[in-house]
Amino acid sequence: MYFASDNSSAVPQQVLDAIAAANADYAMPYGADAIMDRVRDRLREVFEAPEAAVYLVAAGTAANALALACYCPPWAAVYCHRGAHIEEDECNAPEFYTGGAKLVLLDGPDARIDPQALKHALESAAPVGVHNVQKGMLSLTNTTEAGAVYSHREIAELSAIARAHDLPVHLDGARFANALVADGCTPAEMTWKAGVDVLSFGGTKNGLMGVEAVIFFDPAKAWEFELRRKRGGHLFSKHRYLSAQMDAYLKDDLWLKLARQANDAAQELAQGLAALPGGRLLHPCHANMVFAEWPRAGHRAAREAGASYYFASADASLDGPADTPLAARLVCSWSTEPADVQRFLALARG
Amino acid sequence: MYFASDNSSAVPQQVLDAIAAANADYAMPYGADAIMDRVRDRLREVFEAPEAAVYLVAAGTAANALALACYCPPWAAVYCHRGAHIEEDECNAPEFYTGGAKLVLLDGPDARIDPQALKHALESAAPVGVHNVQKGMLSLTNTTEAGAVYSHREIAELSAIARAHDLPVHLDGARFANALVADGCTPAEMTWKAGVDVLSFGGTKNGLMGVEAVIFFDPAKAWEFELRRKRGGHLFSKHRYLSAQMDAYLKDDLWLKLARQANDAAQELAQGLAALPGGRLLHPCHANMVFAEWPRAGHRAAREAGASYYFASADASLDGPADTPLAARLVCSWSTEPADVQRFLALARG
Amino acid sequence: MYFASDNSSAVPQQVLDAIAAANADYAMPYGADAIMDRVRDRLREVFEAPEAAVYLVAAGTAANALALACYCPPWAAVYCHRGAHIEEDECNAPEFYTGGAKLVLLDGPDARIDPQALKHALESAAPVGVHNVQKGMLSLTNTTEAGAVYSHREIAELSAIARAHDLPVHLDGARFANALVADGCTPAEMTWKAGVDVLSFGGTKNGLMGVEAVIFFDPAKAWEFELRRKRGGHLFSKHRYLSAQMDAYLKDDLWLKLARQANDAAQELAQGLAALPGGRLLHPCHANMVFAEWPRAGHRAAREAGASYYFASADASLDGPADTPLAARLVCSWSTEPADVQRFLALARG
Amino acid sequence: MYFASDNSSAVPQQVLDAIAAANADYAMPYGADAIMDRVRDRLREVFEAPEAAVYLVAAGTAANALALACYCPPWAAVYCHRGAHIEEDECNAPEFYTGGAKLVLLDGPDARIDPQALKHALESAAPVGVHNVQKGMLSLTNTTEAGAVYSHREIAELSAIARAHDLPVHLDGARFANALVADGCTPAEMTWKAGVDVLSFGGTKNGLMGVEAVIFFDPAKAWEFELRRKRGGHLFSKHRYLSAQMDAYLKDDLWLKLARQANDAAQELAQGLAALPGGRLLHPCHANMVFAEWPRAGHRAAREAGASYYFASADASLDGPADTPLAARLVCSWSTEPADVQRFLALARG
Repeated sequence: MYFASDNSSAVPQQVLDAIAAANADYAMPYGADAIMDRVRDRLREVFEAPEAAVYLVAAGTAANALALACYCPPWAAVYCHRGAHIEEDECNAPEFYTGGAKLVLLDGPDARIDPQALKHALESAAPVGVHNVQKGMLSLTNTTEAGAVYSHREIAELSAIARAHDLPVHLDGARFANALVADGCTPAEMTWKAGVDVLSFGGTKNGLMGVEAVIFFDPAKAWEFELRRKRGGHLFSKHRYLSAQMDAYLKDDLWLKLARQANDAAQELAQGLAALPGGRLLHPCHANMVFAEWPRAGHRAAREAGASYYFASADASLDGPADTPLAARLVCSWSTEPADVQRFLALARG
Repeated sequence: MYFASDNSSAVPQQVLDAIAAANADYAMPYGADAIMDRVRDRLREVFEAPEAAVYLVAAGTAANALALACYCPPWAAVYCHRGAHIEEDECNAPEFYTGGAKLVLLDGPDARIDPQALKHALESAAPVGVHNVQKGMLSLTNTTEAGAVYSHREIAELSAIARAHDLPVHLDGARFANALVADGCTPAEMTWKAGVDVLSFGGTKNGLMGVEAVIFFDPAKAWEFELRRKRGGHLFSKHRYLSAQMDAYLKDDLWLKLARQANDAAQELAQGLAALPGGRLLHPCHANMVFAEWPRAGHRAAREAGASYYFASADASLDGPADTPLAARLVCSWSTEPADVQRFLALARG
Repeated sequence: MYFASDNSSAVPQQVLDAIAAANADYAMPYGADAIMDRVRDRLREVFEAPEAAVYLVAAGTAANALALACYCPPWAAVYCHRGAHIEEDECNAPEFYTGGAKLVLLDGPDARIDPQALKHALESAAPVGVHNVQKGMLSLTNTTEAGAVYSHREIAELSAIARAHDLPVHLDGARFANALVADGCTPAEMTWKAGVDVLSFGGTKNGLMGVEAVIFFDPAKAWEFELRRKRGGHLFSKHRYLSAQMDAYLKDDLWLKLARQANDAAQELAQGLAALPGGRLLHPCHANMVFAEWPRAGHRAAREAGASYYFASADASLDGPADTPLAARLVCSWSTEPADVQRFLALARG
Repeated sequence: MYFASDNSSAVPQQVLDAIAAANADYAMPYGADAIMDRVRDRLREVFEAPEAAVYLVAAGTAANALALACYCPPWAAVYCHRGAHIEEDECNAPEFYTGGAKLVLLDGPDARIDPQALKHALESAAPVGVHNVQKGMLSLTNTTEAGAVYSHREIAELSAIARAHDLPVHLDGARFANALVADGCTPAEMTWKAGVDVLSFGGTKNGLMGVEAVIFFDPAKAWEFELRRKRGGHLFSKHRYLSAQMDAYLKDDLWLKLARQANDAAQELAQGLAALPGGRLLHPCHANMVFAEWPRAGHRAAREAGASYYFASADASLDGPADTPLAARLVCSWSTEPADVQRFLALARG
């Protein structure tokens, strides 16, 4: 009953097999391996973007920070949600890689940016002079940190506002696959067709050991990215082992299948928790994360049985009346067992 | 006959097995996995350094740049050899991670710093004021980029000079194992007993997919390193897959065995090339790299047979009289086959 | 009738005279001039801080950014008011000089940080790990950007909250003199006795051509500041011309006299505007800035007569019914003529 | 007898007068003052560059570092002489402002870059990949730090080499006026006609309190410079006091007159020292700096009489046989009295 993070799950056998298969003889280093050629072709095909520049790095923070740095100069701002991963969980990596840009924080329910908030922020900064931070770019996160999903139409709406101020758009897709299967659109519809310039295409949270793609739909920034990646220490010499993982991920749409498994488990969990006496969802469960509260008695039973998950607040405590609610964050992954969900729900009932 | 780089070889079966073994259930992310505890203990034991702070990253450039940044402030200089990897091959990563420090370049044969050159540089910078770059730290590379090895006594001599000016010492050990087995000393003798404060302990070039340890013999910088690693995007969520590789590397001294295989192959190759008519070594072959010249006829035969290796100069050409020499860099790895060495030598004979 | 900014006024004759007097023979460069010795002594005396480290730079943004960088590492946050100069008007200079720190924005009326807001921000960030921005320092602005003044007791209260989390405290005193004469305390009471570690002691807005002191009450950061100042290009070779200005500023308490003139003019102006039919202050007028609204008819009359000042909002317009209010920001300086204030008030009456 | 630095001299009366004249009423801040309009026009006229973007800052290090940052990205190199001010005397300011670029050091007599050295450096870096520092820009210093002057033809030759590799060219003209009157060409001939893209046009060493212009002959970088200047804390609010100084400097070619005075004094000094028994110039004296050696007896007599100047080496000593030579650096300024030169020469004779 592990719901602490999708970062803690293992990888499917196909990924191990791909690594083993790649482990023969010599391979060109630094991204010049033959598997990477296949990966690039496949990603271009998946995204219907034959000109896209495609790169692999090993960590989501690196993917995001490098992507932002290619578009946002040091004297400008990245507009993002107050609860975005780039703001909350990257220890100033965006500021580091951009050379000191500022993150301007926007509000909106379920960690989705309210279009009016974006509009207002950009318009009130409109007649900007040399004293003020300049308008740099927009960064969206899909799936959001609150487990909600922007539909491709919502992304397009926000992108259009950014575009009207000449801002490029980044999509942090650490959980892109989960968002995509939730929305039911195509990869192209959720990205470049919706105005996204650069995508952090996550693999790690959805079943890889540590591989994320950075996809530039306009390849103009490709060479700059290559230099930034190397200078950041994110260019792998034995790159084939990244390529192999991504290759397995894309093959036969494994990535979509894994995301569906995670989302399905989360739906089951969310519906079950919401149906508990005293149970309630704090955010809509669109993808693989559940934010819910239910009575302390159920938390105690689950914890005693060894369930692993985070409370929503750092200072939450199991102490307190048995029937008072306590909020939690639960994350399902491709490897979450339906039986574990059922067992957890039975315990949570108290 | 692949001698282009040790970066291009595969990994031994033990590493694949360790990854597969680690691929079960859930593991704590971000370095809190149980395998990392074992790796830390083992590295402390190997280095006779029970207090050492031990971290893993996935690339050598990251290991070096992060280690330097912990000791060298932005207004200071890293003293290193003109041919050091941090100067030649990291696209300003040290400057990036330190926030703008300067690399002061020193000379010395076979990419080893001449102690007199270091002494002179530090003394001539002695009465330094606010206008000048400050003295930051010393960075050594062992095995050097010219394939030579500093003995532990030579490292101690250079460290003592640095120490006399209050400079900490970094050792770039991307090929540490190769240097160690060449020198025949203990890991402690080549590092902290010789005055080294922080070590980039390479795994990738010696048989891992992409794992390097950073070892601080004085743990005072541990927390700062953790923040810098995260901020640089080099903290792995599914860290267990790095741990597992390093675990296999250390088990039963696999790392030393792999390095010996590479060094032995290189010795065989070096001696054979030096013995060719018109053959000559350009640097002593101490570890797993060979710098040699021999007549063009032999190069042509080798290349035609599919041998892969770099010429020593970017504008070198096979064109020219058959008996004129051409210089090359050849790198052996743990996986270099003795038969390939012999075959190559036969071809190089022309 | 110039109320656009205290940045636009001239300098008093004493400053010109001091520069002329300093303009003889040769003087040691880079802050080693004899006048600087006098300035340092005098500032230590004024602040009752015999150990303080005292430096001059020529611009307030430089003073602030350099001071912050000495205390806030790149992976940490400066806590400041949402409307602080360092956030609003320095084009990411704090981010640049700190190497990528983040500004965490707090609320509070009249651009003064609400102690509860600070407390909450620090406590909710309490169990911080490596993923989150670390707690760096607190930066206060006195006089605030809304013209209010923190009393020395209010500063002490905020500093105590910061201290409880081991945070050092910066005071942006671009208008320190105006705040000081408003509060009526001593320089020591408003700074180190209230928990301030480093002060940007403004001169430019209060009658100098371009000189600010940075005062470290604990000199531990002195050498680091000197290096940062030089590396930022803010160390003057002909430093005597900065020293001479500050010397004149301090002599016979000219700085306090100038601030009193500015504050008195602003009080006159504020009371007059508040007393207009339809007139109202938007913030309390504690020092030399007035935020007020009054009917459009009065604005039109003042503007037609050549009065210079900013509307409070970038998209404000004189168009509209004559009796509808429009908000403005008016700044008095040492050189504001009482007659100009009276004339302006007469016009504003409409 | 002050020959320690041109940084230590006073300013001519015209500069004081101009500041006093500017000290009336209110002036638009941040470079929007009317005097700046005149300065811009005049500099465009002087340089025959009607499109040039012209800015003022207060320190040479700031002018250089900001100018370099506009052209050299963080992953690239500035090619400069080993003895350049940007390498030797700016405490890593270029590295700071560029975000971590590298200075590649070239050789050549008298601190002038040998064209062959530049050519070799650029060609050997030619087939550069992502691992290596990229080719960023060329920076020349005129007058050089060894007192020599590049003729405009020499500048054109070096620029042409840079251009052939698509490198822009910066000219550090902290002593531009001294170089110009030495060479006898026009300002345009020494700059844009010789391939210079951006000039640090020095005023401080040649008679101003602290003003340097940065002149972009191609205005494409103008807005970026304005943002970098503000973000670096180098935009002056009371900008008119910088403008006034530069205005006086340009009026009636005062700048050329001052430079001639300094150069003439230096010629007198150089010839006198070279003619001493045991006297010898170490570098040609083209402008206002003299590098010479003469017997210790003469040094002792000069020092005892209060002469102020630096020895060429930090560890030089007056102790030693009276007839043994000791090397010195002597700098003349606009205010050097011919009588002082003669008196010094008489003393130096021993």
